[in-house]
Amino acid sequence: MLLSRYFLPTLKETPAEAQIVSHRLMLRAGMIRQSSAGIYSWLPLGLRVLRKIERIVREEQDAFGCVEMLMPTLQPAEIWQESGRYDAYGPEMLRIIDRHERGLLYGPTNEEMITEIFRSTVRSYRHLPKLLYHIQWKFRDEIRPRFGVMRGREFLMKDAYSFDLDRAGAIRSYNKMFVCYLRTFERLGLKAIPMRADTGPIGGDLSHEFVILADTGESEIAYHRDFLHMSLAGQPVDLEGDLQPLVDAFTGKYAATDEQRDPAVEAALGEALVTGRGIEVGHIFSFGTKYSRPMNAVVVGPGGDSVCVEMGSYGIGVSRLVGAIIEASHDEAGIIWPESVAPFVVGILSLKPDDAACAAIGQRMYEQLVAQGIDVVYDDRDERAGVKFSEMDLIGVPHQLIIGPRGAKSGQVELKDRRTGERQELAVEAALARLLK
Amino acid sequence: MLLSRYFLPTLKETPAEAQIVSHRLMLRAGMIRQSSAGIYSWLPLGLRVLRKIERIVREEQDAFGCVEMLMPTLQPAEIWQESGRYDAYGPEMLRIIDRHERGLLYGPTNEEMITEIFRSTVRSYRHLPKLLYHIQWKFRDEIRPRFGVMRGREFLMKDAYSFDLDRAGAIRSYNKMFVCYLRTFERLGLKAIPMRADTGPIGGDLSHEFVILADTGESEIAYHRDFLHMSLAGQPVDLEGDLQPLVDAFTGKYAATDEQRDPAVEAALGEALVTGRGIEVGHIFSFGTKYSRPMNAVVVGPGGDSVCVEMGSYGIGVSRLVGAIIEASHDEAGIIWPESVAPFVVGILSLKPDDAACAAIGQRMYEQLVAQGIDVVYDDRDERAGVKFSEMDLIGVPHQLIIGPRGAKSGQVELKDRRTGERQELAVEAALARLLK
Repeated sequence: MLLSRYFLPTLKETPAEAQIVSHRLMLRAGMIRQSSAGIYSWLPLGLRVLRKIERIVREEQDAFGCVEMLMPTLQPAEIWQESGRYDAYGPEMLRIIDRHERGLLYGPTNEEMITEIFRSTVRSYRHLPKLLYHIQWKFRDEIRPRFGVMRGREFLMKDAYSFDLDRAGAIRSYNKMFVCYLRTFERLGLKAIPMRADTGPIGGDLSHEFVILADTGESEIAYHRDFLHMSLAGQPVDLEGDLQPLVDAFTGKYAATDEQRDPAVEAALGEALVTGRGIEVGHIFSFGTKYSRPMNAVVVGPGGDSVCVEMGSYGIGVSRLVGAIIEASHDEAGIIWPESVAPFVVGILSLKPDDAACAAIGQRMYEQLVAQGIDVVYDDRDERAGVKFSEMDLIGVPHQLIIGPRGAKSGQVELKDRRTGERQELAVEAALARLLK
Repeated sequence: MLLSRYFLPTLKETPAEAQIVSHRLMLRAGMIRQSSAGIYSWLPLGLRVLRKIERIVREEQDAFGCVEMLMPTLQPAEIWQESGRYDAYGPEMLRIIDRHERGLLYGPTNEEMITEIFRSTVRSYRHLPKLLYHIQWKFRDEIRPRFGVMRGREFLMKDAYSFDLDRAGAIRSYNKMFVCYLRTFERLGLKAIPMRADTGPIGGDLSHEFVILADTGESEIAYHRDFLHMSLAGQPVDLEGDLQPLVDAFTGKYAATDEQRDPAVEAALGEALVTGRGIEVGHIFSFGTKYSRPMNAVVVGPGGDSVCVEMGSYGIGVSRLVGAIIEASHDEAGIIWPESVAPFVVGILSLKPDDAACAAIGQRMYEQLVAQGIDVVYDDRDERAGVKFSEMDLIGVPHQLIIGPRGAKSGQVELKDRRTGERQELAVEAALARLLK
């Protein structure tokens, strides 16, 4: 992308309304723009990050056998009346009356709708298990929206739903999504700790939150320090095998959000206890027949009898993750994107675009990187070098190629690492080789 | 995709509520399911097609220098009051009151919102021209939703917006989108004819509809028969050059929707006149300062003066296209997808999945095609051959590999072309080579 043709309205001043660092940086980096309280437009830079996160979430859902579909944003009130949640949900549900005076609502979650689809299409246990998901905009009419996309009203969520014949099957589906979430967050460059959680308005008796570590996080957390070194990295996961041992390994150690902390257990942990702050980015639930029973989602079982299906639901806050990643990874100068979600992986800064040698090198590097399928942004604008440096750091491009007139004469450029700030002078070809490795 | 693990709830009976062929076939093929009047869930098969269309639309927008962003579904009432369209839009606008009694609406189009974003971020003519687009769900509260996704209430639209300093620039942007649309529809396998159009509630004095030919189309059209042979195919388009001659070539000949037909011109055309039926799938508008003036979207011009920007908007009905393509391409047995948007390009039918030779060949072909990045569905279910044949035709898979126990013994399979019905017996390797070419 040539920056001269892009739409990147960065801000010099920090907007007064932004209370947390991710909100400030997203506004300053020209990633989002508020249109109403808690409702945002995703400007081109922000959308690139959102789509990269979405893609990783999708790939991991697919890899674990979840099938993608797409439910609409607006739902009929009737199915929520059937499940009993229409009145229970309270004023966070955005209720809408259409021109024919029929009740609609902007879906805050989709248990009812997927149950309705399931019950009218699946008749036999032979078609179980089923794991379905969608990635769709949701709405919760928060009384006090704040923290930018971290607690917005219109937000993008991935929600998956499982349907099984019995409790054992439901646990297998739950374990699949548990491991899928660990892998998803690792690919996003995040350290996520699963914590036993309240089930709240979703219901059921088995639930985990996935909380990522961030000094600026919304809630206090406490966990066994072993979590700091636990990871799936390199471990192949056998999806047809038993995932229980893996789940046990990640749930066998103490980890609790503020409201669930246990002073006795923590005292016993002693030195092994770490406290810090975190942000919830995923939540999974197994809730048995809470929706299938009132909504009559039954299949014919192996014995010819009618069986109420066991269900679970599994959510990841896709738009919230954009803010959460920034909370976990930034410095004074701006955002530091993990490479997997960076809007651009490489940035080229031409310090003197009207210098012939600079222009030639910039253009050549740009074309070669684009040809290799690398997301690259080329700052070819007629701007001061200081502006270019600070904007490239603000928007958090991991690898930055700096082309100055002196180096350009001898075919040298600087390669800067956004995270460490390290700069290295390299010949053009060597710099390219480094980036294409 | 293994069909045994997919979610493809096809219907044997034709649903009574469906009046047109695309609606009937989308329901029967398990592509969509209605949740409220004019509001649909996209089941996995339908979503695959929707995403493929979306990708082609996106690639062509990008290729023509349009920059993607994403505006929210809900908009504040205020900006529509500013432009004067809030009251004018009528009951098709879904108006919403939130918990704080603030007025929102589910966006039916985005001229106001993009103008608001532009005026608060772009200050100088040096940042023009700008071409921005998004692909987002919209809502129009049709009084009588019908024809499935062809006239639904919640629908997916690509809408682009151009900002230029003067009329000449606005025409250049208009021409870019005009040619972009021709290319987009060709890639979708459609014959689209641009027709001079009314501007309606969007406004302005320059507008074209893109109408595709379909015997079952919603409206009567008449056009010069030369259109049947006009195409961009193979012509490289120089985006930096003058596109006016190309636009002139496609607008110089008579083409009119029912309400715009001119009996005198048609009489003069004689034999060159073709009449038929069509479906509108795109609409472009150049409307000058209709929104920038009331909303004060101005930039500093080259002379230091304040200039009201010239705007245009450009829409493609992405979800509507799914139905439109089916209207244009189907037969008695079901859908016939153009390869570019087929949910699966290759289908493997194992007529006897429990036969060892059939199973081995099916598995091998499946793995090889998947490894080559081809979208393939493998019907590995324990179903009657007749069911497999008719479902594969119903869902419209272009290339079908049929594995029977007799052929399997000698390493032979049948390759069937969905469009022509032609079947050819081939050795496994020869069939694969044909599909991988």
